[in-house]
Amino acid sequence: MSPDDLIHRPAEPASDLAQTMAEIGRRARDAASRLALAPAESKTAALKAAAAAIRSRANEILSANAEDLAEAKQAGIGSALLDRLALDPKRLEAVACGLEDIAAQPDPVGRVLAEWTRPNGLRIARVSVPLGVIGIIYESRPNVTADAGGLALKSGNAAILRGGSESFRSSKALVSALSEGLHSAGLPVHAVQLVPTRDRAAVGLMLKMSGIIDIIVPRGGASLIERVQRESRIPVIAHLEGLCHTYIDRAADPEKARQIVLNAKMRRVSICGATETLLVDRAVARIVLPPILADLRASGCELRGDTETLALDAHVQPATEQDWRTEYLDAILAVRVVDGVSGAIDHINHYGSHHTDAIVTEDDAAAERFLREVDSAIVLVNASTQFADGGEFGMGAEIGISTQRLPPRGPVGAAELTTYKYLVRGNGQVRP
Amino acid sequence: MSPDDLIHRPAEPASDLAQTMAEIGRRARDAASRLALAPAESKTAALKAAAAAIRSRANEILSANAEDLAEAKQAGIGSALLDRLALDPKRLEAVACGLEDIAAQPDPVGRVLAEWTRPNGLRIARVSVPLGVIGIIYESRPNVTADAGGLALKSGNAAILRGGSESFRSSKALVSALSEGLHSAGLPVHAVQLVPTRDRAAVGLMLKMSGIIDIIVPRGGASLIERVQRESRIPVIAHLEGLCHTYIDRAADPEKARQIVLNAKMRRVSICGATETLLVDRAVARIVLPPILADLRASGCELRGDTETLALDAHVQPATEQDWRTEYLDAILAVRVVDGVSGAIDHINHYGSHHTDAIVTEDDAAAERFLREVDSAIVLVNASTQFADGGEFGMGAEIGISTQRLPPRGPVGAAELTTYKYLVRGNGQVRP
Repeated sequence: MSPDDLIHRPAEPASDLAQTMAEIGRRARDAASRLALAPAESKTAALKAAAAAIRSRANEILSANAEDLAEAKQAGIGSALLDRLALDPKRLEAVACGLEDIAAQPDPVGRVLAEWTRPNGLRIARVSVPLGVIGIIYESRPNVTADAGGLALKSGNAAILRGGSESFRSSKALVSALSEGLHSAGLPVHAVQLVPTRDRAAVGLMLKMSGIIDIIVPRGGASLIERVQRESRIPVIAHLEGLCHTYIDRAADPEKARQIVLNAKMRRVSICGATETLLVDRAVARIVLPPILADLRASGCELRGDTETLALDAHVQPATEQDWRTEYLDAILAVRVVDGVSGAIDHINHYGSHHTDAIVTEDDAAAERFLREVDSAIVLVNASTQFADGGEFGMGAEIGISTQRLPPRGPVGAAELTTYKYLVRGNGQVRP
Repeated sequence: MSPDDLIHRPAEPASDLAQTMAEIGRRARDAASRLALAPAESKTAALKAAAAAIRSRANEILSANAEDLAEAKQAGIGSALLDRLALDPKRLEAVACGLEDIAAQPDPVGRVLAEWTRPNGLRIARVSVPLGVIGIIYESRPNVTADAGGLALKSGNAAILRGGSESFRSSKALVSALSEGLHSAGLPVHAVQLVPTRDRAAVGLMLKMSGIIDIIVPRGGASLIERVQRESRIPVIAHLEGLCHTYIDRAADPEKARQIVLNAKMRRVSICGATETLLVDRAVARIVLPPILADLRASGCELRGDTETLALDAHVQPATEQDWRTEYLDAILAVRVVDGVSGAIDHINHYGSHHTDAIVTEDDAAAERFLREVDSAIVLVNASTQFADGGEFGMGAEIGISTQRLPPRGPVGAAELTTYKYLVRGNGQVRP
């Protein structure tokens, strides 16, 4: 059954679908065992060739995307989703460059993470190896198809991609380009596969393919992630919400605070690293806060504050308890006056999502305490929370920001899609 | 409700139990946030004081254990379980020494795992931090109570321990000693708690305490681990079976092979690192195998072989397909002749449990290929598979051998019970 046969059949018979998924799984496992042993140069060559294929197939990809867009518009999809779905020559070039960025990263497989020798002479090394087969479930964002496929390939993993159904044609065209890259580098073309149906039942089947799929990576809204965490029989790398805070300490440089807060909130309001709650030290709120609130309002931000904030600015709306728990992903900011760095840490650890939080201060002791005591994947001093991004961390690209506690935590790039094994070299040792 | 009230009430009302577990969870979270910030010296002092308390309370612990044993005998518990349950002065001294070994390890928290500076001047560090609250579910083995509690404490985590009900009094006495150690070092006594009831419903409740318990560690038989993986809404560090192989290559030193195989199979047959299948290169089977099989038989090992093995030794029983898939944990060995290192790798990756596998060879190329291509947590050259053990790896102690793919994989010591966070230090950077 080819993907083309399926495109207008939203619900194929369950047994056919199960068979299709089993076949995809079998191919992925086979590809994973070959890709795990592939030399770094082959993976780099495949990524570069895939970028070239995206450029040479640009017309094909853009016209597939135009079909997706037309259908999505007809179905009444909202404008934010349409924007995420849409490709144009500039965006497509960025997708190709993304693959080249991943290619340029150091190879994450085969790194000696630690080594030591035991008194009995056994030499032990912990060495990075691929995870195996990764199932990636995401929204209708064609660029994620290329990023996720590219990161999996770089880390020596086979990928089974299940993008949102609105982007099906675009993703299919992009996966063809990735396959061309794999083929030209002599690597198994099934290392990156797209689930060839829009039938939503495929997601349910993926979550039960334990023994075939090693790790599930959901990337999308809270409802998707919750479904995956509830249903999956396979370990998950979860990316939950980013309820990020910026705290302005009494020892903050007011000008840095002003620039950081404006950037952290307003540079892009829809990303998980956007600040959602501003905390201000009571000791300086009266002086520091008014110009910052004025900046934010001037840039179109709605403000919701506690009573102390309201007293400083008559245009602020009152915040409710729910505001401290809300990831707006919009031009809205909750503002609260707190009792110094202790108050900020307590608020963040209580209401936050353990994603990314920042302090603005010139006081090293306050900074170090904040870094130590805020229990989040990323904690920043004197920088915008919008730096919560694999690219900005120097990872080339990311598949998401993990908010789970077990590793990988924080930005998940190619290196974070590996695990390790222990190599033990002896000369006849037996255990007493 | 004190543990003493519960000891003769195997099934308390469900709402009481839920309340008890919620209270334990609340105390554990509170203890975890304080323990995460505790200095290394306090944790070391607590572990040493706990070891001292075990020695000073030896009579109390041994008499609690005698009560457990008497009840277990009356209940008709098998001799293997009774042996695991039993303490004596020598075993108790080993438990105390185990805590001192953990104390002597380097502190696993606050290690800088990586650091780098970005072109924009942001300094990024990945630093180890505790996981939080760990729920540990295990069999009726009192020593695990001390090991698990000690490892959790060392790694800055709070532990909720749920040992097998037959060991309830022994575990309670040991946890009292751990609490004494924590108290004397000024650390929260609720950092190590024992579920104060033998009601099995407590396990089901633990598996649903997401947001309270961060990680579940099951340690025990396959049925426990499967239940936990099926029911848990919390990430699991799973320790599945150890279907370990030793492969004798054509370039093996026959004398090393003989000693390694005998040790790998017979030193202790009930541990997860015991070899269950012996693979032998066809090129040398006729010469190398007969003396090894004679050794094994002389030491009481039952042998089950493929047709080629049967042809070499008339006393070997025929192996079935099921034998290649069986973790005997007993004095039984499956034996198969294979087609060199390729045949061995194929067999292991197909039938094995990705736990621990060994090659015996003097050929470096064969050894390196085996190390690279065998997809297991631990791969050894010229050493016994019985070295699959956190203590033998130099970790002081272990909570188990993880057979999952995501880290932690392999032996899980205190360092493997940590995660990391990113500390980012800037001087006013905003994202363009």
